[in-house]
Amino acid sequence: MKIHNFNAGPSVLPKEVVKKSAQSIINFNGSGLSLLEISHRSIDFLEIIEKATFLIKRIMNLNDDYAILFLQGGATLQFSMVPYNLMNQEASYLDTGFWAHNAIKEAKKFGKVKVLFSGKNKNYTYISTNYHIPCDMDYFHCTSNNTIVGTQMKIFPRTSIPIVCDMSSDIFSRKLDFCQFGLIYASAQKNVSSAGMTIVIVKKNILGTIRKNIPSYMDYKIHIQNNSILNTPNVFSIYTSMLTLKWIENQGGLSFLEKNNQKKAKLLYDEIDQNNLFENKIHQENRSNMNVTFFLKEKNLEKEFNKMWKKENIVGLDGHRYLGGYRASIYNALPLESVQFLIEIMKEFERKFS
Amino acid sequence: MKIHNFNAGPSVLPKEVVKKSAQSIINFNGSGLSLLEISHRSIDFLEIIEKATFLIKRIMNLNDDYAILFLQGGATLQFSMVPYNLMNQEASYLDTGFWAHNAIKEAKKFGKVKVLFSGKNKNYTYISTNYHIPCDMDYFHCTSNNTIVGTQMKIFPRTSIPIVCDMSSDIFSRKLDFCQFGLIYASAQKNVSSAGMTIVIVKKNILGTIRKNIPSYMDYKIHIQNNSILNTPNVFSIYTSMLTLKWIENQGGLSFLEKNNQKKAKLLYDEIDQNNLFENKIHQENRSNMNVTFFLKEKNLEKEFNKMWKKENIVGLDGHRYLGGYRASIYNALPLESVQFLIEIMKEFERKFS
Repeated sequence: MKIHNFNAGPSVLPKEVVKKSAQSIINFNGSGLSLLEISHRSIDFLEIIEKATFLIKRIMNLNDDYAILFLQGGATLQFSMVPYNLMNQEASYLDTGFWAHNAIKEAKKFGKVKVLFSGKNKNYTYISTNYHIPCDMDYFHCTSNNTIVGTQMKIFPRTSIPIVCDMSSDIFSRKLDFCQFGLIYASAQKNVSSAGMTIVIVKKNILGTIRKNIPSYMDYKIHIQNNSILNTPNVFSIYTSMLTLKWIENQGGLSFLEKNNQKKAKLLYDEIDQNNLFENKIHQENRSNMNVTFFLKEKNLEKEFNKMWKKENIVGLDGHRYLGGYRASIYNALPLESVQFLIEIMKEFERKFS
Repeated sequence: MKIHNFNAGPSVLPKEVVKKSAQSIINFNGSGLSLLEISHRSIDFLEIIEKATFLIKRIMNLNDDYAILFLQGGATLQFSMVPYNLMNQEASYLDTGFWAHNAIKEAKKFGKVKVLFSGKNKNYTYISTNYHIPCDMDYFHCTSNNTIVGTQMKIFPRTSIPIVCDMSSDIFSRKLDFCQFGLIYASAQKNVSSAGMTIVIVKKNILGTIRKNIPSYMDYKIHIQNNSILNTPNVFSIYTSMLTLKWIENQGGLSFLEKNNQKKAKLLYDEIDQNNLFENKIHQENRSNMNVTFFLKEKNLEKEFNKMWKKENIVGLDGHRYLGGYRASIYNALPLESVQFLIEIMKEFERKFS
C-alpha cells in the first residue's frame, strides 16, 4: 500500500532509514542485543554519536568552533535554554509565526525582548527584511521556516551579535552559509529522525558570558563538556539521525536536496496558483519550500475535496488546527511522485467542481 | 545467540515488546505508515497515550487526583523541574547516592536545601531511617533505588508534606502504597521503555502554589493542561511504554513482579555471600533488588573473572565507572535464567580460583 504522507511532523522519513532503524531494534549490528538495550556509554553508541556529529559538521561545512548537541525537550525547551544561556539584559526577536511568538513569550521570562518585526497583524503571511538589529542586544533570534503558516526566511540579516535560529522545520533542506549563525536548534521529527530529540549547533565562543545559576540540563556548556551524555540521551533517535545524515550525503548533500525541494515546491505552488479552486495566501518571496499551505476559495467544497484525497491514501493534508485549510509538508524524504500525485488530485478536483 | 544483558540502563526489555515496537516502525497497526511517521496529534497516538496513562493508574492503583505525564530530559531535568514547581523557600532531601546528590545540587540553585541524612561518608552503603522531616519544608525528596551503589529504600517516612520520589531505577518493580507520594518521576530506560522519555506522576493539588515565572516546558501544570503534548513528545518511547505496561499486567502486575524480583535478587545475594571470592558492601536491609553490586575480594583476579563472563555472552556486568567492581542490574525483564546463569559462572570461578 503506497501512502502519500504530508504530515507536518512527525513526518515521512527515508524508506531505508525506517527499515534499518527497525532492524537495529531487533538486532543491533549483529550483537544479538536490541538498539534499545545497549548502554549509552558503550563504544557502539559513542561511535554513533561521533559519526552523527561528524556528518552534521561535514554536511553544514562547520569547523570545530561549533559544538553539536543531541538534547531532549524539543524546540520548546530551547525557547527557554537560549535566554538562560545567552540573555543578560535584552535580546531581539522576529515574530514571524506561532512558534516564534512562543519563543518570545518564553524569552520575556528572562529579560527584555525587543520585537523587531511582527507579522501577526497580517496573519504571519509575510516576513519583512526591513528592520534594524541594534548591536547592544545579547542576540538576535529568528525562525527560518514557519511550519504552521508556511513561510520561510530566504535572506538572513547581517549583524555583529549572535544570530540564533530555530530551524526545526527546514534544517538540512537547503544550502546556507551556516557560519553566520551563533546557535541553531531543530527538533528532529521533521527532516531528521523520530520525535523526542533536538539538535543544537552552537558556536562555543558565544557561551560563558552569563552569571546566572543555570540548571545543569539547561546549560549548553555542561552538555558540551559531557559530549551530550550528561544523562541518558535519546539513543534510538540519535541512531536514526545518523542514518538520515548518511542518506543526505548519499543523495548528494544539501545542494541536491535544495534543488529537489525547490522543484517539488514550485510544482505545487504553480498548481495552486493556476487552479481555480485553490489559493495560497503567502507573499510570493516568503513561500516555504517545506510547508505549502493552501485554501479552498469556496469553503463549501471542503467536504468533497476531503473525501477525494482521503480515499487516495493521502494523509496529513489538513491545515494546522489554528488555521484550517490545507498544508502539504514536503520535507526532504517526501518523494517527488507524492507531490505529482497530489497535483493530479487537485486537477481532477478542479475538472469536477470548477 | 542468547545474550544475558545486565546493563544498568538502557537495559533489557521484554522480548515481545522489542519485537512489536520494531514491527510498528515498519508498519504501524497496518496503516502502511511507520510509527515514526504518524502525527502526535493523530487519533492513533492519542489512543496510545490514553492507554498508557490508564495502565499506569491501574497498575499503581492511583485515582484521578494524580496526573500522568510523559516528558523528556530524564531525571536530570526533573532535578530542576521539581524545585521550579514546588520550592518556595526550603526543601528537605535524603543524600543516598550519586544521583540523589545531583538532585540536591540542582535544588540548591532554587532555594535552601536541608539534607536530613547523607550516606556519603559511608560510601552510600546504607540508608538511615533515623531522621526527622520538619513539616515547614516545601517537600521531602528521596531516591527509592540508587542505581550506582545498589541500595534501595524499603520503608518510606510518614509526613504531611509532599513526598517527591525519584523512582528511575525501580518503578514498576514492586508493590507500594503509591498514594503516599506527591510526585514520582522515573526515566524510562530501565524498567519501561527506550531512552529519552520520563514518566512523571503528580498529585495535582500540590501544584500551583509557586509564584515563580516558570519556563513553559518546566511547568507541570502546563503539561497537564496539554495532556503531555504541549509540544511533540517522544512518540516511539511512549508507544513502547504502553507495550511494556500491557506486559506488566499480563505477567500478573506488581505483586508478581515484586516476588519474581525478590527471588532473583535473593539467589544472587546468597551466591555473593557464600562465594569465597566475592563480597557485597551494602547493609543487608538496604540491598537493592534491582542493582546488585559486588566486588572481588582479591582485585588481582579481575582479569580472569572478566575473561570468563565476557566469553559467555554476558554483557553489562562492569560496575559503574565511579565505583569499579561489578553490578548486575536485574530489572523486571531480565529472565531468572540469566541470574542462574551468572551464578553458575560465579561458582565455576570459585572452583577454579578459590
